[in-house]
Parts: sequence; structure tokens; C-alpha cells
Amino acid sequence: MNSRVRELKETVCALHAELVRYDLVAWTAGNVSGRVPGEDLFVIKPSGVSYDDLTPESIVVCDLDGNLVEGDYAPSSDTAAHAYVYRAMPHVGGVVHTHSTYASAWAARGEAIPCVLTAMADEFGGEIPVGPFALIGGDDIGKGIVATLEGHRSPAVLMQNHGVFSIGASAKAAVKAAVMCEDVARTVHISRQLGTPLPIAQADIDSLYDRYQNVYGQRSSR
Amino acid sequence: MNSRVRELKETVCALHAELVRYDLVAWTAGNVSGRVPGEDLFVIKPSGVSYDDLTPESIVVCDLDGNLVEGDYAPSSDTAAHAYVYRAMPHVGGVVHTHSTYASAWAARGEAIPCVLTAMADEFGGEIPVGPFALIGGDDIGKGIVATLEGHRSPAVLMQNHGVFSIGASAKAAVKAAVMCEDVARTVHISRQLGTPLPIAQADIDSLYDRYQNVYGQRSSR
Amino acid sequence: MNSRVRELKETVCALHAELVRYDLVAWTAGNVSGRVPGEDLFVIKPSGVSYDDLTPESIVVCDLDGNLVEGDYAPSSDTAAHAYVYRAMPHVGGVVHTHSTYASAWAARGEAIPCVLTAMADEFGGEIPVGPFALIGGDDIGKGIVATLEGHRSPAVLMQNHGVFSIGASAKAAVKAAVMCEDVARTVHISRQLGTPLPIAQADIDSLYDRYQNVYGQRSSR
Amino acid sequence: MNSRVRELKETVCALHAELVRYDLVAWTAGNVSGRVPGEDLFVIKPSGVSYDDLTPESIVVCDLDGNLVEGDYAPSSDTAAHAYVYRAMPHVGGVVHTHSTYASAWAARGEAIPCVLTAMADEFGGEIPVGPFALIGGDDIGKGIVATLEGHRSPAVLMQNHGVFSIGASAKAAVKAAVMCEDVARTVHISRQLGTPLPIAQADIDSLYDRYQNVYGQRSSR
Repeated sequence: MNSRVRELKETVCALHAELVRYDLVAWTAGNVSGRVPGEDLFVIKPSGVSYDDLTPESIVVCDLDGNLVEGDYAPSSDTAAHAYVYRAMPHVGGVVHTHSTYASAWAARGEAIPCVLTAMADEFGGEIPVGPFALIGGDDIGKGIVATLEGHRSPAVLMQNHGVFSIGASAKAAVKAAVMCEDVARTVHISRQLGTPLPIAQADIDSLYDRYQNVYGQRSSR
Repeated sequence: MNSRVRELKETVCALHAELVRYDLVAWTAGNVSGRVPGEDLFVIKPSGVSYDDLTPESIVVCDLDGNLVEGDYAPSSDTAAHAYVYRAMPHVGGVVHTHSTYASAWAARGEAIPCVLTAMADEFGGEIPVGPFALIGGDDIGKGIVATLEGHRSPAVLMQNHGVFSIGASAKAAVKAAVMCEDVARTVHISRQLGTPLPIAQADIDSLYDRYQNVYGQRSSR
Repeated sequence: MNSRVRELKETVCALHAELVRYDLVAWTAGNVSGRVPGEDLFVIKPSGVSYDDLTPESIVVCDLDGNLVEGDYAPSSDTAAHAYVYRAMPHVGGVVHTHSTYASAWAARGEAIPCVLTAMADEFGGEIPVGPFALIGGDDIGKGIVATLEGHRSPAVLMQNHGVFSIGASAKAAVKAAVMCEDVARTVHISRQLGTPLPIAQADIDSLYDRYQNVYGQRSSR
Repeated sequence: MNSRVRELKETVCALHAELVRYDLVAWTAGNVSGRVPGEDLFVIKPSGVSYDDLTPESIVVCDLDGNLVEGDYAPSSDTAAHAYVYRAMPHVGGVVHTHSTYASAWAARGEAIPCVLTAMADEFGGEIPVGPFALIGGDDIGKGIVATLEGHRSPAVLMQNHGVFSIGASAKAAVKAAVMCEDVARTVHISRQLGTPLPIAQADIDSLYDRYQNVYGQRSSR
């Protein structure tokens, strides 16, 4: 187990830098986790640690109930939500949480982002949905994420008055979903400021989504 | 005293770089100060010096009446406001002032930022309030800051037509409050551009605030 | 052929960094291509490769039907559109595609950007037009680009619900057009948020365009 | 003369990097010039040269009619406007031109920026005024700048449908005015998006302006 966990800690530590690069986080907010392949474990950011100070060694290991298994720090205060997602969605290998600006602005109004961009059809296969208002501290956030995502193709959900949770087959895929979520949240917001974006027909959304999920990129490197 | 002051000058000098990193300041605007523990003194940015040129040696020391005690430069033109806060609020260890864009935009309308984000409930425990219009040069700004903050949980106040003052137990905590103030000012502004953000119930705000102030982060490193 | 292609790969690889620098792309979206002088070939970004990982060696060579001629990676999924432009417009030496935020926001509303800035008259000689909605995978996008650009002076077109395609005598000129397109898309958007920008008379647009195309810059280095 | 000109070229070359740092320019747009002390000469950016490629040696020297006196490149296409300002305003030691986003958005509507921020009272002493629409190529732009600035305290003018020209006692002071102009253009724009900023009384504007011009900063380093 040790070498696989060590490698995953390095990957997840490096992916946190992508949240900073794409301006998705301020101060210590936001976190990335990754499931340990073949184990009932995941690695996650420690709570309240600065992005500058993150090292692979500071990333902590938790079990799927969110209990700390290995590490010198307390796990992220969002650990229970990540754990719930890993328990409920076995195909998920990575989870990301941010308060990215434009996505959180939609979330504060409790409004889903309509699919009016071909890039959004590609990545999200339709709207980015809104999950319920939920307090931190129990399974309410995790339940809200899972219940909302199960009814949609979207790998990202806007939790009302809160922010974004995104999922993926890997931690990197979940980070990509968080980056693209903010990107389309921003573009659709700006488009709506001066009028109404044109809708894309459902059949075209379906065709774009199918093609992107099956053809885009290098066969082995998605 | 010397080694404690030297260390604080280094800390406060480095914290000014966070104002630049988070895009809270333009040219020489903005400043950070920190109270010297156990002394009636604080250190603060010199007036009109470029952020690139700041060194720990250029940071000046003032007494709690704002008089220069040590340093080769004139202290920040906002020194009187910082001094007033330190005199009136003994628990304050750091003060920050910025003209950060979105917060100043709310300030120019004289409008408090409503608490419609869970991150805002965490950090500010409610709205970010507005203080009075006040001219620089006497104690009016300091009085306005203190009178406004005393009625709120928020560690930040929007001074009308002016900008932000934030406080904290340390200079670092005050910088965090300034960073998060701009972050929520931006998100709530953007949310409001396309409709009305959903309110968060007062009981939920209270519960989020209590939890965050007591549980978040590593026990010893807040 | 080899040394000319190698040099072009280096140029096109370096130009991708300009898309990142000017914030025109997120994750792996966007691409630059350049026609090989004197050959029925062009070089283009590989599909789904991160901007950090792009090297001159990873840039691929295609023929004007979009078939891969040289390279270890699959070509960009937008290759067919680039190929169509090179076939139809022999004077074009470079093509760029982005989903840059403000331009895509106009594209999502299917709205041309009106020419209300002298810099826009200089570069675009009038409005930046909108092309049709078109699905990826055949020649529809390429046809839409060419049909729209042939009726305008503008080297950039907003493809409806999609993003920007820009052209130029060289790959560098096409990148410049993509950068300036986002710049004016942003400024005109922001101007329109608070009222109606003043029109520029057609005769003045003509005079600015003529001057800029013939006089600006160093005679040999356009 | 030579060493003074060489030093000024270095200063003006370095100041161009500030336009990039503060995001005031795209591609090769924008320029800074500085008057040679005691001579009827000024130095200015060459036309159409990339900011990355600027060196002190590439900065050119012109006389006050805008004729090239020394340098390997053609001078900026805005040279005539700079020259007119130097001829008409003997106290001006530096001129800056940008198409910075928010200021140009006000300029496209032909609308002055109202003085609703204390920082704006400090720097501009009132509104930032609008100058006439003018075509490039003769003295029209220069005349418009001078006629507008002579009626205002502001060191910056918004040229209609065009962009910003700013002046100062030195090239550095003119760059500061360009940076602060965009900063307040942005904040006042954002404030106005959600309502009407509160006015500042004229007497308070006067008092802030007088104080800032006379007291702020280190006595010798303005």
C-alpha cells in the first residue's frame, strides 16, 4: 500500500496548485481528494493549511467514514462530504470542492447553469444542477451532492449558498470538472448580463456529449 | 524588545506581499500593521513606498498615538486610524487597510454586504457592515471603524466612499479578513447582478459561525 | 521540408503560450495552427494535451484534408475546421481557436460585437461577425467560418454558442487577432453594461482601418 | 546629453513593464514617453514592438514636433499626440497612453467618471473628464487632450471611443495616473452596476485633494 499512497499524495498535492492557478480558491479554502485504488481509503488536504505550505507529506489519509488513518494534521473540514461521495459512488476516484466565484454566485441564487455553450455540452452533457442548502458537520452535504449528481450527467454540482463539488474517475478528472465549471459559469453569467443566450437543442447537446466522452483527446491519456 | 520588533517587521513586510498576490492594492495604496506584543507600539508600512521596495527595515514603528518612534520613513498616511483601533480595541493585534475593488464598490454605495454565502457566515458571522464617511487626518476614521465593528461580529468594515479596514488577533488574521472580504464582496456582487441571492436563516448563520470559529483548521495554527 | 517544419513547430508551440498568458484558454481547450509555406500541410496542437506539456515535438503535421501526416499524437479535434479554412483561403497562413470568455459570451447570444472603439476599427475594420451554429465532426464549422469571414474585413468570427476562430497571414497574426478579439469583446461588453456606446461613423472606421493596415508598426515586422 | 538620455530610456523602458503588470495593455498597444530634462526632446516606445522585446536601446528619441532624432525603429504611432502635449504643457515630464479596459469602456460611452471614491479625490481632484473623438495622424488628438486637461485637475483624460492619455511631472507619475485611472474606472463601474454611488461633497473633494498633493508619501520621493 505505501508506495501507491505516497504517489497519490504527490498527485493530489500537485493538483491543489491547479486550484490556485485557475483562481478557484482564496486563502485556505477548497480541497482535492483522491481514492486509494483497491482500498477503502482516500487522501485529502489537511484543514486550514495554506496552499504554499502543502507538501505530499502534509496530505492526510482517511477511511471511507472520514476518520483520520494517517497524517500529522486534522483532515479538511469537508472530509465527511468527500467520504460520503466515495461510499455512495464506487466509480468516483476523485472529489474537489471550491468556492469559485462565478459558480458560487449561481449557487447563491440557487440557480442551475443552463447549457448554452458547446464546451458545456461536451463536458457536462447539459445544465450544471443545484443541490440543497446543507449545514457542514454531518452527512447532509454528502447526501445532497450524491442525490443531485445521480439525476444528471454533470460531474459538478452547485451546493446552494455554498460552492461547487465536482467528481471524476480520478482526482485529476475532478479538478478538470471544477476548472471547467467555473469557466462556463463565468461565460454564461457574462452572456446573460446583456440578454438571453440562445438555447442549444437537446439532440445537439446529446450528440456533442457522446462525441466528447468517446473521441476527444489521446486514447490512453484522458 | 529589539528581536520581537524585528521579527514582527519581517512578518508585516511579508504580509504586504499577500495584498499584492490577492490583487487588493494598486501602486502604493493599502497597508498592514501589527501590534508589538506587550508594548504600546505597532509596526506599519511607510507612506507612499512601492510594494516592490518594501523591506523589513523600511517598516516603521509607532506609538499608540501614531507618533513615529523608529524608522527612516514617514509612517503610512492611515497611521492615525490604525493607532485609534489599537487604543480602543486591546484584543486587536493587526489592522489592514485596502481599496480592494468589489468591497470599495459596495462602500461607494454605502451598502452592507448581505450574508448569503456559507463562507461568509463562517468568517464574518453575518453582514459586512458600512462605516461612516470620514476625512483623513484626525480620529474620525478610527472612531468610525471602532463604532461600526463593535456592533458586529465581522472583522471587516466598509468605510463609505473609501475602502476596507479589517482587524484580527494578529496581522495575519487581519490580512485573511481583508482577503476574504474582497472574495465575498465579489461573489455576492456577481450573484446580485442576475437576481436576488437566497437568504441564509439567522440560526444557520449562527451555527456556521460558531463551528468555524471553534473547530476549523489545526488546533494550534489559527 | 524538415527544417522549415521544425521551425514552424517551434513557433506554433511558443504561440500556444500566448493563449495562456492572455487568459484565452482553460485546461486543454484552444489551439493554434500554421500553414507550412509552399506545402499542402499545416502544423497543429495535439488533442487534449496540457499546455504545460506542449513541446515542438508534440505538435503534429496534417495535410489539407486534416489527415495526420507526422506526429505521435492524434491532432486537435478542431483539425477539420482548420483544414477547411486552409483549403478555402489560400492567403491564410495561421488559424486560432479559443473559447475566450467575453467573445464566447457574445457568441452564446449570437450577437456581433459592434465597432465602437478606434482599436477595433484598426484591427477589425468594423464589427466582429457571428457565424452559424455548427456541430463538430464534419466540414460544417469550417464552412461557417469561411462564409462569414468572406463577407467581412474582420480576421475573427464568433461561432454561435461556441467560441472564436481567427485567421492571419501567419500563425502569429492569427494569435494577435484572437487576443485583440477578446480585448475588444471585453471592453465593449463592459461599456454596454451601463449604457449605449457611441457609434463611430463608417467613414472614420474606414480611415482608421486603412491607416492601421498600411502604416502601423515597423515596415518589415508586421 | 547622452548619459541623461540613456538613463531616461532605461526608466521609460522599465515603466512599460508596469503597464503589463497592471494589465493596462494587450499585445503591442499602449506607450510611455518621458521628456528629456532641459532639451526639446522626449523618448518614446517604438511602434508595434512587443513588450517582451523592449530594451532601453529600442526606445527612440523624438523632437517636440514628433520627428525621429535617434533610434533604429519608427516611433509609436501616437507620437504626434505626445509631442503636442509636451509643446503645449511645459510642466509635463511624462505622458502615457493605454486602452485599459474599464477606462476605455467609459470612453466608448463618452461618459466622465464621477468622483465617488476618496482615492479618486486624492489623485484626480474630481471627475476624470472625456475628450473629443479625434482621428489619429495629425494634431487633433493632442489638441483634444490639452484642451480637456486644462479645464480639470485630473492628470488623465478619456478620449472618446479611444482610451486614456495621462500626464505627470515625470514618466513615472504619468504611469501612476494611468494605473489609478483604470483602478477607479473599474471600482466606480462595478459600484454603478448595482445602484448609484453616493456623491462626495465638493468641499470634501477639495480637502482630500489638497492634503494628498501636499502631505502624502515621503517628502522627496513623489
